[in-house]
Amino acid sequence: MIPMEKLGIGIIGAGRIGRIHAINLYRFFPEVEIVGIADIDLDRAMQLSREIDNKKVFDDPTALINHPDVHAILICSSTDTHTDLIIKAAKAEKDIFCEKPIALDIELIDEALTAVEESNVKLFVGFNRRFDPNFKKARELVLSGKIGKPHILKITSRDPEPPPIEYVKVSGGIFADMTIHDFDMARYLLNDEIVEVYATGNVLIDEKIMEYDDVDTAITVLKFRGGSMGVIDNSRKAVYGYDQRIEIFGSDGMISVNNKLEDETMIANSRSFQISKPLYFFLERYQEAYLNEMKEFVSSIINNSNPPVSGMDGKIAILIAEAAKKSLKERKPIKLEYQ
Amino acid sequence: MIPMEKLGIGIIGAGRIGRIHAINLYRFFPEVEIVGIADIDLDRAMQLSREIDNKKVFDDPTALINHPDVHAILICSSTDTHTDLIIKAAKAEKDIFCEKPIALDIELIDEALTAVEESNVKLFVGFNRRFDPNFKKARELVLSGKIGKPHILKITSRDPEPPPIEYVKVSGGIFADMTIHDFDMARYLLNDEIVEVYATGNVLIDEKIMEYDDVDTAITVLKFRGGSMGVIDNSRKAVYGYDQRIEIFGSDGMISVNNKLEDETMIANSRSFQISKPLYFFLERYQEAYLNEMKEFVSSIINNSNPPVSGMDGKIAILIAEAAKKSLKERKPIKLEYQ
Amino acid sequence: MIPMEKLGIGIIGAGRIGRIHAINLYRFFPEVEIVGIADIDLDRAMQLSREIDNKKVFDDPTALINHPDVHAILICSSTDTHTDLIIKAAKAEKDIFCEKPIALDIELIDEALTAVEESNVKLFVGFNRRFDPNFKKARELVLSGKIGKPHILKITSRDPEPPPIEYVKVSGGIFADMTIHDFDMARYLLNDEIVEVYATGNVLIDEKIMEYDDVDTAITVLKFRGGSMGVIDNSRKAVYGYDQRIEIFGSDGMISVNNKLEDETMIANSRSFQISKPLYFFLERYQEAYLNEMKEFVSSIINNSNPPVSGMDGKIAILIAEAAKKSLKERKPIKLEYQ
Amino acid sequence: MIPMEKLGIGIIGAGRIGRIHAINLYRFFPEVEIVGIADIDLDRAMQLSREIDNKKVFDDPTALINHPDVHAILICSSTDTHTDLIIKAAKAEKDIFCEKPIALDIELIDEALTAVEESNVKLFVGFNRRFDPNFKKARELVLSGKIGKPHILKITSRDPEPPPIEYVKVSGGIFADMTIHDFDMARYLLNDEIVEVYATGNVLIDEKIMEYDDVDTAITVLKFRGGSMGVIDNSRKAVYGYDQRIEIFGSDGMISVNNKLEDETMIANSRSFQISKPLYFFLERYQEAYLNEMKEFVSSIINNSNPPVSGMDGKIAILIAEAAKKSLKERKPIKLEYQ
Repeated sequence: MIPMEKLGIGIIGAGRIGRIHAINLYRFFPEVEIVGIADIDLDRAMQLSREIDNKKVFDDPTALINHPDVHAILICSSTDTHTDLIIKAAKAEKDIFCEKPIALDIELIDEALTAVEESNVKLFVGFNRRFDPNFKKARELVLSGKIGKPHILKITSRDPEPPPIEYVKVSGGIFADMTIHDFDMARYLLNDEIVEVYATGNVLIDEKIMEYDDVDTAITVLKFRGGSMGVIDNSRKAVYGYDQRIEIFGSDGMISVNNKLEDETMIANSRSFQISKPLYFFLERYQEAYLNEMKEFVSSIINNSNPPVSGMDGKIAILIAEAAKKSLKERKPIKLEYQ
Repeated sequence: MIPMEKLGIGIIGAGRIGRIHAINLYRFFPEVEIVGIADIDLDRAMQLSREIDNKKVFDDPTALINHPDVHAILICSSTDTHTDLIIKAAKAEKDIFCEKPIALDIELIDEALTAVEESNVKLFVGFNRRFDPNFKKARELVLSGKIGKPHILKITSRDPEPPPIEYVKVSGGIFADMTIHDFDMARYLLNDEIVEVYATGNVLIDEKIMEYDDVDTAITVLKFRGGSMGVIDNSRKAVYGYDQRIEIFGSDGMISVNNKLEDETMIANSRSFQISKPLYFFLERYQEAYLNEMKEFVSSIINNSNPPVSGMDGKIAILIAEAAKKSLKERKPIKLEYQ
Repeated sequence: MIPMEKLGIGIIGAGRIGRIHAINLYRFFPEVEIVGIADIDLDRAMQLSREIDNKKVFDDPTALINHPDVHAILICSSTDTHTDLIIKAAKAEKDIFCEKPIALDIELIDEALTAVEESNVKLFVGFNRRFDPNFKKARELVLSGKIGKPHILKITSRDPEPPPIEYVKVSGGIFADMTIHDFDMARYLLNDEIVEVYATGNVLIDEKIMEYDDVDTAITVLKFRGGSMGVIDNSRKAVYGYDQRIEIFGSDGMISVNNKLEDETMIANSRSFQISKPLYFFLERYQEAYLNEMKEFVSSIINNSNPPVSGMDGKIAILIAEAAKKSLKERKPIKLEYQ
Repeated sequence: MIPMEKLGIGIIGAGRIGRIHAINLYRFFPEVEIVGIADIDLDRAMQLSREIDNKKVFDDPTALINHPDVHAILICSSTDTHTDLIIKAAKAEKDIFCEKPIALDIELIDEALTAVEESNVKLFVGFNRRFDPNFKKARELVLSGKIGKPHILKITSRDPEPPPIEYVKVSGGIFADMTIHDFDMARYLLNDEIVEVYATGNVLIDEKIMEYDDVDTAITVLKFRGGSMGVIDNSRKAVYGYDQRIEIFGSDGMISVNNKLEDETMIANSRSFQISKPLYFFLERYQEAYLNEMKEFVSSIINNSNPPVSGMDGKIAILIAEAAKKSLKERKPIKLEYQ
């Protein structure tokens, strides 16, 4: 039995993301008790367990979901398992944190959201970048009117290295896998809905990707309900590191967020002045965001407030990604309709 | 009679641009003699004349073109006069510098280019930004392979203030008037041809512009023959100043050109750290470019070399602008074909 | 009894610094067990205890030092208690981490260092800035010869706000309290010994400080054994935040370390371009340094290696501070001699 | 005869500095007529003459000074000729612009200043850096109180390459030759007088300099009448280019002026992010300052106003340089007294 006053959390998936959440919860949340870690790869679960005071491991996520000490579940397993686990957790009346995307299929998402609604549990979708202090500040500056009405939003979002081709196959394509973060960021920063998408792209990094009807370099143009426009540029491979910048231009000014750099050093010699490079890896770049995200999740349960990223946010991001995919294929802008 | 060894130049148009060329030629080109200035507004011509040692003024540009001491003509008058003057100068066998755009109508441009070709004179089209040292260096870095194959080109091009509505009326629209510089810059930087354009835009600054079927904020997506993609964002009004930045992202790296700032100062107090703003006005921002452009023009005559910006460059920029206008109207990407 | 394999640590002093070490040890060191916290203010000790799983509190530091589970002691109490506690810990054969300065009096320092030497325990002096990744990288670049022979070292070190006047009274003066960090940093960065000090200063912030024969603004010039020169400028009050920059200029180049800023945002409007301010508080600025410092301390015990900051480093910093004080008083440079 | 309305100027010295003034006057001052150029090296004078429309050349500076068309004289010849030429020009009642330093000897300076005073001509001393827009703005911000009371002034002043050893011999030493600019800048920026100097230095670049009792690397500490302190660091050789930065820290904030860079480009690849280097050469770095300086000189004559840099400013800079030299030799701070 865990102490009465502690919030019992079960973690499903002991991969990269499951591990970061587990370690953050273990280190920084005295009010949380990690009840257990479930992974189909039991070795991986045990390895993580050893890092967090030998918490219990489970090979069956359902057993963890149904454990009486578990109040909330983190779903960090592969995307194809998400909706099934959400439905199970909802039925067991456990609050849910689910990594993005909820699913690649809108019908499956709808089933999951219905289950969540019926059992009245919380569903928090893991768009971690919303919890980056820079982007949060940018949004607050926009909402407070500091740059007037937003006219142009620009998001640069480039990965340092492409994922393995096996991953690309099941990823749902660049828009559902990678740009989805930027779609959510666009909605978040402008606090507005995207009503039209035009996407274009090319295979410039690895020709193998063509077999999966996907691109590795893309430019996506967005139109917002309120009249603002946006543009996202994505690449699967920026040799200089993880490139995550935004710029919001408005009637009264501009906000920009530059990359977080490795350090604050500069070195000059007779040939060059060198400044630091951006942090290379998303786990480093968004370290603070992952911690803040977990704080918000725990706080939304403890204070019984609405999660700041809802299931609907998760669904809309996929709707936009689907529109982008269709736009790329049909070579024309696609309108989005929300009921 | 001007000295034998001097190059006689006549300047048509004593407005903002005519004046900058006249003063540059007067100050920095001992090898050039300004034979005269023609302007339909004789007062304006005389005012400029007083700044450059009282050079002769003409109210009839044809008289200046045909003046025996004139070897070359600068056409800095309003766009609607350009092709007529080019044809006259070509027939008089005078070399020509013509401000952009050559004309808004492709047929007129073709007539002018034919006249130039037949009389075998030089035609240099005034895309001044090509002669900015920053952009020139960026192009050289691209061409030398420093960033590998270019994948994504981004051009930010925002004016500090919209032009008077009277000007907008006859400007040919934002793409032919403003983005035309960026189209030329895109071709110049990547040394590649644009094969498809998708443009979208909105009226966010001044509703009056709607009457002229134009927009004041635009995003244009480009596809290049070699597979690179580009995106241009334009605004008629950036309250913080003239915003002219580029970024070229490629397989092996990235080049960016930031704005030229007013100065190198920073001031900190308990509330903020303030750095300098971009130079506000295009004449300041491109001061060096205007001078370099004139050097190239004079040098192309003296050394009998091809002008670095040809009549065809002027025509292609208008073809792209027309495609952008069509794309905005028809809400779909437009392919460009070059014979 | 603590688990055999864990390293038992006792913390003396539950103030600002004691708290940061305690929380770091608790969160990030599964191999460490905090045996207890001692503070003459028992309430303060208990408050900290509640943040770290209710570890035991002691009002008598000697009891904690002599506790059989304690292998090592962190001394984070006020400066006047340091040497007494070091001697007690040394006699009890406990390894020691002591905050800077060891003491303000060289004789006391010598007594403490003798005790440490006789009992052969480790003494690690808390010059936290050495463990900042930026400064560490700067040192490595210098030592690897990247800028050739160092010629000029510049350290800017300004606090955001002066300490309370009560603190100033017992602080030993600006050189022993504040510049001491910079003296140690200078030795660390150049890996060289300071052989001459010239200090000048003024009271420009708060006249009350005059009563204590101290200054609040100082410039100190250093000469190093190897011929390099250095200059440190200090202020007790930089209204824009904690200002901690270094620059090392050498025969083949220059290294600079800029401040760590609050974030990566920039906001522009018609009046200004604002970038972020430096982190305001030393605990934020050196957050990573404090954690790294503790890692080095724990590692030096576990691996039985020499602490990277020795008792002698602590003594030399005080010798330099004394020379600076003397220089200020006598208005001339003072030579330093080391046996 | 030159036109009545034109200001006749004679230029003595056709070296680097004489040439820049001559060309600026020729290009940008329609109100000025260059009457002639005098140089003991007649070839050099003729070479410059050819660049400025074949103005007359003189081998005897006295002839030029006494030429009836000459209203003002620019003295750009070697330092040892300055006071003699000033006295001659003063006696001939010609206004005078003299390059820094007036002389290395205070007695000679006094003789020259007396001659100037007696004949009531203008004497403008060429401290060109005062006319750099950045430094001018910094001064204005200080004087307007934007950073409150100045506490610490920092000047970084490093040359890209040491001068030839032959030049060093007659230069009067680093303080009279190089730091003199910084002494004047310090007085200018704070609008305050220096009352004490402490200088230290070393030979770190070229041992040959030792023979001339000089140093190539120096740190100089200044105390101002109003309580502010300053520090200047000089090096004869910064491999990365001409390094000219200032920082003024005060009770309410800080102003900094960074270097002017070659351009605004940045290039990133998998190894580094490179920004531009500082402009390498003083003629480029202070190009605008030289032009502004000449504008102020011409304007002070035409409007009959006091030159912004007086003979006394020239004398004080040398007094400070002498104090610095003495301080270096005697290894103690030296007080300055002004009558």
